[in-house]
Amino acid sequence: MDRIIDITELALRDAHQSLIATRLGVDDMVPVCEDLDQAGYWSIECWGGATYDACIRFLNEDPWVRLRTFKELMPKTPLQMLLRGQNLLGYRHYQDEVVDRFVQKSAENGIDVFRIFDALNDLRNLERSVQAVKRCGKHAQVAISYTISPIHTTEKFVDQARRLVDMGCDSICIKDMAALIKPHAAYELVKGIKEACGDRIRIQLHAHATSGVTMVSYMKAVEAGVDGVDTAVSSMSLGPGHNPTESFAEMLENTGYTTRIDLARVHKVKEHFAKVLPRYSEFLSTVTGAETEIFRSQIPGGMLSNMESQLKQQGAGDRMHEVLKEIPLVRKDTGYVPLVTPTSQIVGTQAVLNVLMGRYKVLTGEFADLMLGYYGLPPGERNPEVVEQARRHAKKEPIDCRPADLLEPEWGKLRAAALPLEGCDGSDEDVLTYALFPQVAAKFFATRHEGPRNLGRDPVTGASETSVPEGHPGKIT
Amino acid sequence: MDRIIDITELALRDAHQSLIATRLGVDDMVPVCEDLDQAGYWSIECWGGATYDACIRFLNEDPWVRLRTFKELMPKTPLQMLLRGQNLLGYRHYQDEVVDRFVQKSAENGIDVFRIFDALNDLRNLERSVQAVKRCGKHAQVAISYTISPIHTTEKFVDQARRLVDMGCDSICIKDMAALIKPHAAYELVKGIKEACGDRIRIQLHAHATSGVTMVSYMKAVEAGVDGVDTAVSSMSLGPGHNPTESFAEMLENTGYTTRIDLARVHKVKEHFAKVLPRYSEFLSTVTGAETEIFRSQIPGGMLSNMESQLKQQGAGDRMHEVLKEIPLVRKDTGYVPLVTPTSQIVGTQAVLNVLMGRYKVLTGEFADLMLGYYGLPPGERNPEVVEQARRHAKKEPIDCRPADLLEPEWGKLRAAALPLEGCDGSDEDVLTYALFPQVAAKFFATRHEGPRNLGRDPVTGASETSVPEGHPGKIT
Ligand SMILES: [Co+2]
Ligand SMILES: [Co+2]
Repeated sequence: MDRIIDITELALRDAHQSLIATRLGVDDMVPVCEDLDQAGYWSIECWGGATYDACIRFLNEDPWVRLRTFKELMPKTPLQMLLRGQNLLGYRHYQDEVVDRFVQKSAENGIDVFRIFDALNDLRNLERSVQAVKRCGKHAQVAISYTISPIHTTEKFVDQARRLVDMGCDSICIKDMAALIKPHAAYELVKGIKEACGDRIRIQLHAHATSGVTMVSYMKAVEAGVDGVDTAVSSMSLGPGHNPTESFAEMLENTGYTTRIDLARVHKVKEHFAKVLPRYSEFLSTVTGAETEIFRSQIPGGMLSNMESQLKQQGAGDRMHEVLKEIPLVRKDTGYVPLVTPTSQIVGTQAVLNVLMGRYKVLTGEFADLMLGYYGLPPGERNPEVVEQARRHAKKEPIDCRPADLLEPEWGKLRAAALPLEGCDGSDEDVLTYALFPQVAAKFFATRHEGPRNLGRDPVTGASETSVPEGHPGKIT
Repeated sequence: MDRIIDITELALRDAHQSLIATRLGVDDMVPVCEDLDQAGYWSIECWGGATYDACIRFLNEDPWVRLRTFKELMPKTPLQMLLRGQNLLGYRHYQDEVVDRFVQKSAENGIDVFRIFDALNDLRNLERSVQAVKRCGKHAQVAISYTISPIHTTEKFVDQARRLVDMGCDSICIKDMAALIKPHAAYELVKGIKEACGDRIRIQLHAHATSGVTMVSYMKAVEAGVDGVDTAVSSMSLGPGHNPTESFAEMLENTGYTTRIDLARVHKVKEHFAKVLPRYSEFLSTVTGAETEIFRSQIPGGMLSNMESQLKQQGAGDRMHEVLKEIPLVRKDTGYVPLVTPTSQIVGTQAVLNVLMGRYKVLTGEFADLMLGYYGLPPGERNPEVVEQARRHAKKEPIDCRPADLLEPEWGKLRAAALPLEGCDGSDEDVLTYALFPQVAAKFFATRHEGPRNLGRDPVTGASETSVPEGHPGKIT
C-alpha cells in the first residue's frame, strides 16, 4: 500500500500573500470553498500571516468575519493559520494575556491548526502561544524558520525539533520561506528529526518555489519520511509562491507514495483562480521564473528591492554592490539570524547605513534592540563589540530574559482604548484588531459598515467590480 | 568524486521558441555568446527547430548568417541543432540528396551536434540524416519522442533505444516536449536503456517544465544514470519552456552529482535575458505556472488553443468538451501517435471534424495520409476500418515503404527554381532555404539586403529599436 502524503493547501493565504501582496478579497475565495473542503486536504491555510493586516488596511474587510465565513463554507477540513508567536500578527511583542485571548478567539471563530513561528527560532517566543492552543484543544504546529549559515547545521535544526517536541507541540513544520532548502538538505533534515524525535512526530515541509529546487526537495523529503507538504493550486503557484498542488500529486505516480487529493475538485479551484488572478495584475509580483541568487547573497527577493529603493533615496543607487557584501558581515554580527520579517529589514537597513556612513557609525533603534536581545536570543554568538555599541547608542542594557517578561499586563488598557473608537463593536475581536494595528483599526472600525472592498479590476477595461458576486457576504464599494 | 552531469543550454533555441514564439533576434543573443561559450556547457542548442522559419518569415534574418555568427562567437562549446529527420526543418519529406546536402551545409556552417527526431518514432525517417551526420564527422544524437499511451511502455521505448544504437547513433535523447515524463517513469526509462544498451551509451533527457513535475524527473534520471540534461537560463525558463539551468546546478549540492557549469557566467546571461524578455512581451506565451491537465487530456497546450479557435470559427465554441473526448479515440485509431508537430494538428483537426460532421464523415488530406502510412509507420496498430475510409477518401493506396522512397530526385529542380528568384545568391544555402519554405524564401531573398529586423519593443514606450546595438551583425529596420 502506498504511503499517504498529506497536503496543506495555501491558495487562500500564503499563495496570494506571495503573489499579489495579500490583496485577494473574500468574495473571490467563496466560490471555491466547497471544492477545497471536499478535495481531501489535511488542512487549508486561510488566515493569519499578513491577511489580517491586509483585510483591515486595504479591503475594508473584517478578518474575523472572513474566518467565520470560511468555517461555515469549509466545515470538514481543518482550517489553518500562521501565527508569529509572541508577535501574534503584529509587529511587536504582546503580553501573555493578549496572546491567550487572541488564540482563544481564533479557535472559537474557526481555526483548527495553529502554525506558530519565530524569526529567531527563540523557543521562549513560542511557548505561550503553544500552551494557549493546547488549552483550546487545537493542533499546535511549531515551525522552524529554515535558513543557511555557517552555524545552521542539520544537527542544530534537529536539536531545535527535539526541544519543540519536549515543549509539547503536536507537529513540526520546516518553514523555508526563501526557498533555500535543497534536496539533500531536506532529506537529511527530515530523516534527522524522525530519528531524533521518533517516527510518530508529524513533520510538515513548507517551502516556497522561488529558487526552482524545492519541488525536488519535496520528493526527497517524502523519501525521508515527511508526513505532509504545503502546496498551492497551480494557477496560484510558482514564482515567489509555492509548488503546484496538482504537480505534486501527479509526480508521485508509481513511487510508492500518494495523496488523498481529488484532482477533479482541485481542477475546478484552478480554473477559478486562473480567471481571478488577472484581475489583480497590478499587485502581481514581478518575480517570475526562478531566482537562485539567494544561495549566494542570502538575501530574499523582497529585501533586495527594499534596499535598492533605500539606496536610491540616498542618491547612492550605485553602491548596491557594497551593500551586498556588507549584509553577510552584519548578519554574522547578529549571530546569524534567519533573514525573514522583521530581521531581513533590520539587517538590510543597517547594512545600507554601514555602507553610507561607515560601519556601525549610526545604528537604527531596531538594530540596537536586535543586538541587545529585545527580539529574543539569536541563533549564534553576537559580536560583543557591536553589542556594546548598541548599548551605548540605545542607552539600554542588554537583556537575556524572554522579551515579553518585561511587559506589563495590557489587555485592560487596550480594551479601554479600543471601545470608545467610532464603530468599535465592543467585542474581544475588535479589541484584538486594535491591539494588533491601532491606527489602521481606528480607521477600519469607522468604515466597516460600508462592507468589503474588492480590489480586482477587469483585466481588459480596468473597471472595478460593480455588482456583488453570488455568495458574497458583504457589499462591494 | 562526484559524477558530472552534462548540461545543454536551450536559451538560444527551444527556450525562446517556447516562450516568445521563436521571435528572439540575433542581436539580442550576441551579447551573451561569450559567457555561454565559457560557461562549461556540453552543448549549446542554438539552431533548427522553428528558428529557421522564424528567421526568414519574421526577422528578415538569414539563418545561415546567424549560425556562422554563433560559430564565430562560440568557438569552444559544441553547437547543437534540432532536426526533424527526413522533414529537415520543413513540413514535408525531402528526397535523400536534399537531406544530405542540408546536413553537410549545417555542419560546414557550424553545427557540431545534430539532434534528430521523428514525430512517429519511425526509424526509417531518421536513418538518412544520421548517416549524413556521421559522414560529416559530427555527433548524431537521435531523439525518442516521448509520449504516454496504453502501448507506450518503458519496454517499448527501451527497444527503440536499442535499435537506435544499432543504427549507429552517437547518443540518445529522451525528448519530452509535453512535460509528460514523471519521476518514476524517467528513472525506469533511463535505467532500462542503460541496462539494454550498455553503460557506455550516452543518454540526454530533454523535458519541458509545463506540468511542474520534470525537475523531479531530472533528479530521478540523474540517479538512474543519465549523462546529461537540457535546461534554460532561469530568466528564460519555466511555463511552456524548460527547467532553469541555475536551479539544476544548485539542487545537486551534496547529492554525489555535480555539473561543470560556471554559475557566475550563467548569471550574466540571466541578467541579460531578464532585460531582453520584456521587450518581446507581445509574443509571450500566456501559459505560466504549471499545467497538469495534459496527463488526463493527452493534449499539449498549444494544440488546445488551436482547436478552440477552429471550433469558434465554426460557431461551435461550446463543443470543446466533446472534442476533448474525441481526441483520445482518434489518437487510438492512428495507432497512438505521439502528439507533436505535425501529428498534434492532424489529430486535433480530425477530432474537430468528427464532432461537427459525424465521426470520419469528412477526412482531411493530412489525416488520410497519416492513416495510409505517408508520414511513416505509427507506433501501434491502426484501425483498419479508418484506414479503408482514408483509402477511399484520398483515392490513394496505403504504403508500408519508407515515405521518402517514393520521392524522385529533386535537388536539380529546387536549384533551378531558386536561382532565378530576386536576391537569391546562388549558394546551396539559399537553395536549401527555398527547398524548406518556397514562398517565404522568395520574399526573404528580395528583402534580405535590408538586414535583420528586431521585433523587440521598449516595454514602456512600445517603441521599436532604432539604434544598432554593439556587436550587431546587421542593420535594424
Ligand atoms: Co510561506
Ligand atoms: Co523542446
